[in-house]
Amino acid sequence: MPLRAHRPLPLATPAGVEVLTKILTQGPIPRVEIARRTGLSQAAVTKAVAPLIDAGFVTDQAAAPVEADSQLGIGRPVSPLTVVPSSVSVIGVKVTPTSLIGVTTDFTAGILNIRHEELDDTDPEVVIDRLAAHVKALIGSLKSGTAVAGPLAGIGIAVSGDVDAAHGVVRDSPLMGWRGVPVAELLGERVRVPIVVSNDVRALTVAEHWFGVGVNADSFAVVTIGSGIGCGLYINGEVVSGAYGVSGELGHLPLAPGDLVCTCGRRGCVETVASSDAILSRTRETTGRADLDLAGAIKLAHEGNEQAREAFDRAGEVIGSALAAMVNLVGPELVVIAGEGVAEYDLYEDRMRRAFAEHAFGAAGDCRLMLRSHTFDDWARGAAATVIRSYVRGEPPLHR
Amino acid sequence: MPLRAHRPLPLATPAGVEVLTKILTQGPIPRVEIARRTGLSQAAVTKAVAPLIDAGFVTDQAAAPVEADSQLGIGRPVSPLTVVPSSVSVIGVKVTPTSLIGVTTDFTAGILNIRHEELDDTDPEVVIDRLAAHVKALIGSLKSGTAVAGPLAGIGIAVSGDVDAAHGVVRDSPLMGWRGVPVAELLGERVRVPIVVSNDVRALTVAEHWFGVGVNADSFAVVTIGSGIGCGLYINGEVVSGAYGVSGELGHLPLAPGDLVCTCGRRGCVETVASSDAILSRTRETTGRADLDLAGAIKLAHEGNEQAREAFDRAGEVIGSALAAMVNLVGPELVVIAGEGVAEYDLYEDRMRRAFAEHAFGAAGDCRLMLRSHTFDDWARGAAATVIRSYVRGEPPLHR
Repeated sequence: MPLRAHRPLPLATPAGVEVLTKILTQGPIPRVEIARRTGLSQAAVTKAVAPLIDAGFVTDQAAAPVEADSQLGIGRPVSPLTVVPSSVSVIGVKVTPTSLIGVTTDFTAGILNIRHEELDDTDPEVVIDRLAAHVKALIGSLKSGTAVAGPLAGIGIAVSGDVDAAHGVVRDSPLMGWRGVPVAELLGERVRVPIVVSNDVRALTVAEHWFGVGVNADSFAVVTIGSGIGCGLYINGEVVSGAYGVSGELGHLPLAPGDLVCTCGRRGCVETVASSDAILSRTRETTGRADLDLAGAIKLAHEGNEQAREAFDRAGEVIGSALAAMVNLVGPELVVIAGEGVAEYDLYEDRMRRAFAEHAFGAAGDCRLMLRSHTFDDWARGAAATVIRSYVRGEPPLHR
Repeated sequence: MPLRAHRPLPLATPAGVEVLTKILTQGPIPRVEIARRTGLSQAAVTKAVAPLIDAGFVTDQAAAPVEADSQLGIGRPVSPLTVVPSSVSVIGVKVTPTSLIGVTTDFTAGILNIRHEELDDTDPEVVIDRLAAHVKALIGSLKSGTAVAGPLAGIGIAVSGDVDAAHGVVRDSPLMGWRGVPVAELLGERVRVPIVVSNDVRALTVAEHWFGVGVNADSFAVVTIGSGIGCGLYINGEVVSGAYGVSGELGHLPLAPGDLVCTCGRRGCVETVASSDAILSRTRETTGRADLDLAGAIKLAHEGNEQAREAFDRAGEVIGSALAAMVNLVGPELVVIAGEGVAEYDLYEDRMRRAFAEHAFGAAGDCRLMLRSHTFDDWARGAAATVIRSYVRGEPPLHR
């Protein structure tokens, strides 16, 4: 059984957490550079690092051999610190109405195993039972792996909608049809390890912040386009979580005409026009072809069908306006647009960029829009990243 | 001449800046509590504080006598630290198309003097000449005061629009009719002290963050309603400044119908319906009374005139939607709505709150909307607060 037992990190102070965070997200990094970036003394950095090295979470032994001649390198790293990836294991699962997508990762959110499973029922009790079995199978894959897996830091669950992460409750997930589902409690009765429940887009943003595009950006937004439209924000050194647990609800800005009702019950939401379901409905309606699926609608639009193109144009227009609204408010350095259906970008990208340029205010429009493909495994990795963050920060686990 | 010469703060490290910030914004505060809140060691706090006390910026001598019997108080402050307000003087000026509003303040942004002056020309050269004279008069008021004024830390200038604070340039201020005006450079040729140029709403938010409602809030928004509609955001421990200098442009979210052109040249901006000018134009148009002024429109609406009420209703509706959009994106704990015309709140408050409730997503709607009156002197004090922040942080002055 090569899965070691859970153990907390030896971090006594906020400074220790800061130091480990720097090593994890910016390593390999020398002690002196950590001191410079955190404003801590070198003595304080060394003091925080020592127990982490002793416990095997961090190492200053470079994987690659370092040249002996140190006269060459001005600014050459001196015993740079890195985390030991295999010192910690993590599980992340993205829950959708039709599937569970799970991954196991190491301490740096590097994916070890992937496990997909279909769901045919969104009833919370049914889903949680399936989720518990799914998690147990992932734990099994850690135990049966050839390499020794680090102790399991916890399980991250990502769900779309309004999630109360502090209590592990999905308060309102229109896509799942869930209201007030205490996921951490229900899952914790079945699997006794620490559980972190997050909004899925926020989880993705944590992953980008610690292990992705955000490592080198002072601020950024991740916008996800697909069956829902979400947005994660990283501003002023932290992912924006919202004082009441809600933030980044780009899909529910009231920017669309008020005649359509959203899945959330409100009128005028961006998603009423720009979600993939909305695009499909519109194309079915205007072409009179009730049998179309999304792939069919995309194909029609690519063939130049005017009605199908109009549905994508409408979506692009509203997404562009929504991006401008977000950028006008928070002014990020960079926006990563992570779409599930990258194949359809060409159908709305021009219109989206034009609407963005029309409504972006002044220099806010200098913000770069990066389009990027994106898989369901990325969502699950995001869920794992939330556990890593929670573990490093020593946040009290919800259930174990 | 009781204005002492300029001198930098004795702050050698980022930790020192953090310690002074805590004393300034949360004092009186004991050293042990600063250590707890910053994660620094008590030794580090004591080391940072000593030169500040020596130089007279900070004191641990309580103004009020402390009881000798220390057995009573669990958690009683032990030699709490406060800044010495008179150790620093600051000037803040808000520039509007029709007036200069200047204040002098102490180190805690407490107002010492106020000076208002009318403008009859918005030509940049003319305004900067008048501004230089205005600032010199404010410096004179510091010199001639009965009490000794602390050394002048600098001059803060607040202007609406897109301001490049890093270079002291007003890039685009539709209200002033300014584009690319290098305010810091032009003013710096005339008055040789450090200058900080800021977007006016951002300056107000700095003041709220350090000396107002923000001291006890983890996140908040300040929304200003009047001739323009602006928004300052405080999230994750800092005022949001925008990677390209633009943020909080609530008045330029594309939430209004696209048939009206905004002062900024774009279509569909919130301000096309909700600024005081927009309300007045609409009332003039629908009542056919081209001679109305804003006071007259407010009076008509209060008397129940349907056309006038409709103009305020439209404004309230769009402002409420804009607040919901902002809250859905960033989820602040609290929104302070600071209006120039608090007398007209009753005309749109109901409609605004209703639109907000309709479009706020899930728990984001728990955010409290606080309506508060607000004077031009508050803007000027905000400009002074930006100087205090810049001075404490040891940011290089633009001109001196």
